[in-house]
Amino acid sequence: MLAFTEELTVPTRGKGTYEITDQVAAAVRRAGVREGLATVLVRHTSASLIIYENADPSARVDLEEFFRRLVPEDAPYFTHTAEGPDDMPSHLRMVLTRTSESVPVRAGALTLGTWQGIYLFEHRTAPHRRSLVVAVLGI
Amino acid sequence: MLAFTEELTVPTRGKGTYEITDQVAAAVRRAGVREGLATVLVRHTSASLIIYENADPSARVDLEEFFRRLVPEDAPYFTHTAEGPDDMPSHLRMVLTRTSESVPVRAGALTLGTWQGIYLFEHRTAPHRRSLVVAVLGI
Amino acid sequence: MLAFTEELTVPTRGKGTYEITDQVAAAVRRAGVREGLATVLVRHTSASLIIYENADPSARVDLEEFFRRLVPEDAPYFTHTAEGPDDMPSHLRMVLTRTSESVPVRAGALTLGTWQGIYLFEHRTAPHRRSLVVAVLGI
Repeated sequence: MLAFTEELTVPTRGKGTYEITDQVAAAVRRAGVREGLATVLVRHTSASLIIYENADPSARVDLEEFFRRLVPEDAPYFTHTAEGPDDMPSHLRMVLTRTSESVPVRAGALTLGTWQGIYLFEHRTAPHRRSLVVAVLGI
Repeated sequence: MLAFTEELTVPTRGKGTYEITDQVAAAVRRAGVREGLATVLVRHTSASLIIYENADPSARVDLEEFFRRLVPEDAPYFTHTAEGPDDMPSHLRMVLTRTSESVPVRAGALTLGTWQGIYLFEHRTAPHRRSLVVAVLGI
Repeated sequence: MLAFTEELTVPTRGKGTYEITDQVAAAVRRAGVREGLATVLVRHTSASLIIYENADPSARVDLEEFFRRLVPEDAPYFTHTAEGPDDMPSHLRMVLTRTSESVPVRAGALTLGTWQGIYLFEHRTAPHRRSLVVAVLGI
């Protein structure tokens, strides 16, 4: 039985999606696990994780616009506004997506589908350095 | 320590929820794990997973209607429309629900509550054959 | 290899967020796992889990108001209304957040970020006793 954890740092350039599939796959290889499970956690409350379509970038453009409309920056009832207009929306966008994602591992590889990528979803306007942890368990 | 993975194929008849609890429970039995964790991944970006009320079908009818209103097919700002009006909404509905779900295993069984079932949530109008992977780890 | 599971009971006083980080951390200590993964499942379909900002309570106030507006209690198309006006909204709020959450464990501790707490998100108006299961796997 192997249990391997590793921290990843992902720099962002503000709101948007940043693919981290290769970094998670590399952690699985370093773990030496052939059959098991890989789990990623983003260690922030203003960024999240999604497994999303990795082929056509237009799907990521429309995603950003959907969330801009679903969680507006200027909601008059927001009281949590100390860090600016993108502060509270970042928490709500995070809550509607994922903080952790898990992917089974077979034959030493992530079992993602052909069109799936793992993405860090940055919800703040300013660039950030995001901390993530990958855990890989198995045999 | 046991680490078991298995692929499941689930045929759908278009939009809606399809219970897969029995198939995940059967994978846990085949794994021979008495105490541990079962994780399911759906390997697509236009279908998702939810753990949902399994008793009254009206809860699933209202779920479908809620998502039809929250993520309309005719949003004028969508640019990702190559595969038809249900293409982009399928990605957004997926992002708002789950790609992976994990359930602890005790005494060789899923620890779901009485009214919980694991469902594949199909977001495309046409029937599909969906590929999922179950990983079961434990002792 | 260690595989440990434990049931938690969390009493709620109606709608809102209830931090359970300490209870999950205690389960990790009891498991004796130094490196691995902790997973929490809420065994209900009218309550959910989130990993959320644990510093400024105003972020939790705005969260409740956001969901009150996103999933109103009086939607005219709801058919699943047997248990009252908060019945169907509780399922939808649950589906938009999480039923399970996973957190890697390093050095015997949860790897949550500084501002992250694990919360039970109660969606029913009346107080409930909620059942959760924690699974901790690793070495």
